[in-house]
Amino acid sequence: MERNYNFCAGPSTLPESVLKQAQAELLNWQGLGASVMEVSHRSKEFEAVVRNCENKMRSLLNIPENYKVLFLQGGGFGQFTMIPMNILGNKTQIDAIETGVWSGKALKAMAHHANINLVASTKETKFTTLPDLNALNFSKDSAFVHYCDNETINGVEFRAPLTECETPVVADMSSNILSRAFDVSKFGLIYAGAQKNIGPSGVTLVIVREDLLGQADPKTSDVFNYEVQAKNMSMINTPPTFSLYMIDLVLTWLQGQGGVEAIEKINAEKAAMLYGLIDDSDFYHNPVAIDARSRMNIPFTIANPELDPIFLAKAKEQGLINLEGHRSVGGMRASIYNAMPLEGVRALCEFMSDFEKQYG
Amino acid sequence: MERNYNFCAGPSTLPESVLKQAQAELLNWQGLGASVMEVSHRSKEFEAVVRNCENKMRSLLNIPENYKVLFLQGGGFGQFTMIPMNILGNKTQIDAIETGVWSGKALKAMAHHANINLVASTKETKFTTLPDLNALNFSKDSAFVHYCDNETINGVEFRAPLTECETPVVADMSSNILSRAFDVSKFGLIYAGAQKNIGPSGVTLVIVREDLLGQADPKTSDVFNYEVQAKNMSMINTPPTFSLYMIDLVLTWLQGQGGVEAIEKINAEKAAMLYGLIDDSDFYHNPVAIDARSRMNIPFTIANPELDPIFLAKAKEQGLINLEGHRSVGGMRASIYNAMPLEGVRALCEFMSDFEKQYG
Repeated sequence: MERNYNFCAGPSTLPESVLKQAQAELLNWQGLGASVMEVSHRSKEFEAVVRNCENKMRSLLNIPENYKVLFLQGGGFGQFTMIPMNILGNKTQIDAIETGVWSGKALKAMAHHANINLVASTKETKFTTLPDLNALNFSKDSAFVHYCDNETINGVEFRAPLTECETPVVADMSSNILSRAFDVSKFGLIYAGAQKNIGPSGVTLVIVREDLLGQADPKTSDVFNYEVQAKNMSMINTPPTFSLYMIDLVLTWLQGQGGVEAIEKINAEKAAMLYGLIDDSDFYHNPVAIDARSRMNIPFTIANPELDPIFLAKAKEQGLINLEGHRSVGGMRASIYNAMPLEGVRALCEFMSDFEKQYG
Repeated sequence: MERNYNFCAGPSTLPESVLKQAQAELLNWQGLGASVMEVSHRSKEFEAVVRNCENKMRSLLNIPENYKVLFLQGGGFGQFTMIPMNILGNKTQIDAIETGVWSGKALKAMAHHANINLVASTKETKFTTLPDLNALNFSKDSAFVHYCDNETINGVEFRAPLTECETPVVADMSSNILSRAFDVSKFGLIYAGAQKNIGPSGVTLVIVREDLLGQADPKTSDVFNYEVQAKNMSMINTPPTFSLYMIDLVLTWLQGQGGVEAIEKINAEKAAMLYGLIDDSDFYHNPVAIDARSRMNIPFTIANPELDPIFLAKAKEQGLINLEGHRSVGGMRASIYNAMPLEGVRALCEFMSDFEKQYG
């Protein structure tokens, strides 16, 4: 088999048709006699790519006019710093919700910039549950509330976003953006590393409500300043051009799939199939509370962990790769983002059934 | 012609053999059944790419053991902020040398963090000359001195780096790194956006002397902290994996060319050929003082500027593209980085001779 089913948590599998197009035009893009990697980011051809990325993202997510759409560098981790730099204003406190490894890293990093008011944490359940977002007490003194909508390592995902909150809501949607419909207008700022549902790594999407701009820390230089980047099409300096080109192709592919609403149905079907198999079995186990389970990242264990390496080796023989759990939690994990086809999850489920019959 | 000779200032032309290898393995890298874009940055295969990038860079530039080699995000512009964040220490002043657009942008951005002591500026010659680096007066109160070794827009390049200076020397070598041999040990910190001589855009090389670490501003979060990134192979979070993979291929290509010393000879030959044609002609003109001329970026004008669009159109017909001068200066510019073959410069010179015969 030329291509495997790749369950990597990120950078993750991309649509095969997108890779084939990139391959075909890698040495000669748009008849320019040069690769897309070799042309100026100020060329009319490349500026069209950036405009396409923005317009397609706006259309797919129904982003209101009063939001800016930025494509920056530095990953989600970079945003842990840029967000307070840009929107802390004259406040000195941030409300934070901790539901796993990534929201934990965010609050630790943001503590360099402000006091952290920990509104809720599920640490005591080992991040296998989620708090009721609309029953929390937020502080009027906080500049914003930060939470992570889907935790890749712990496999928890909020059913619905935080909507009843007076302070601006800032959400890390790195691992579930574009996987389901949601109302952008409820948020102050949404950010997402590209390398799950958007494209290859190297680009970070930031969607920010205009009224939050204009209050950046005076030390914030232009490259990290949302307002300045918004006025310059996210091109204060040279962006990661190849990654943006790939994002344009991925968004076109997603439109061809019928958009976010259509892919959401397939994602729900994929997750239901895999959780169904796990729950119907005494052999496989997922530790997450049913109403907190992620449809993107599904960690699971086998009753006898000595079988883990055998499971992984035999899965690989069947063309099912990168199923190792995160190094911090062990076991297995299947990441089934937009670009993982239904057939891939079906193949995984068939393999898991067979494996259970043989070793269960 | 499938491929043109591409004189773009950046992102710029890449070696054709590198692009062909990337194309061949774009859907299935190292037999993994997945693209290099689709595998974890923590996989052993990808960690080897990052190690290769570092080791090849160390070998090509003879980087001493007491220097860290980092591959970061954010471009040269990002470094205008990260450098003061990391190495200003308890000082409040920076010595700056202004020799063109990029060193000007740097000092403007660094002024967010410290007082700028302008040691020299060639603004009054419209950046067509260079100061004598070793005749300048530096301040003991400055944390470091910053300069730009090659200015892409103005086409000036120092003949030899700044060596006689007690404060640490910080150099922007974005547009001439790897083009000639130099002594890294004379520098405190060297940085370079990848998109000229290193690979595609999205990665920024930082070479920093170890004794400058450990004094970062307490607000500096891990992703921008050199010391933390150095301890984590520049992978605090997901790096731009495809760009790093391409860098590995470009550095392998450069080793195959005979390394920096060998490419330096070819670069000198290319520049001599083009400057020779310009200087022997009354039709073409380069405004830069002879001892300040860049071997990477060669701006030139035609006596009658109404011929510019005709020159550019006819050059394009001959497969010679992206010769437009920077929007801020006009005229023409030929960027002839490492990956521009001698034959490309020869073809340009032949075209320019023919054009002069017809229109001169």
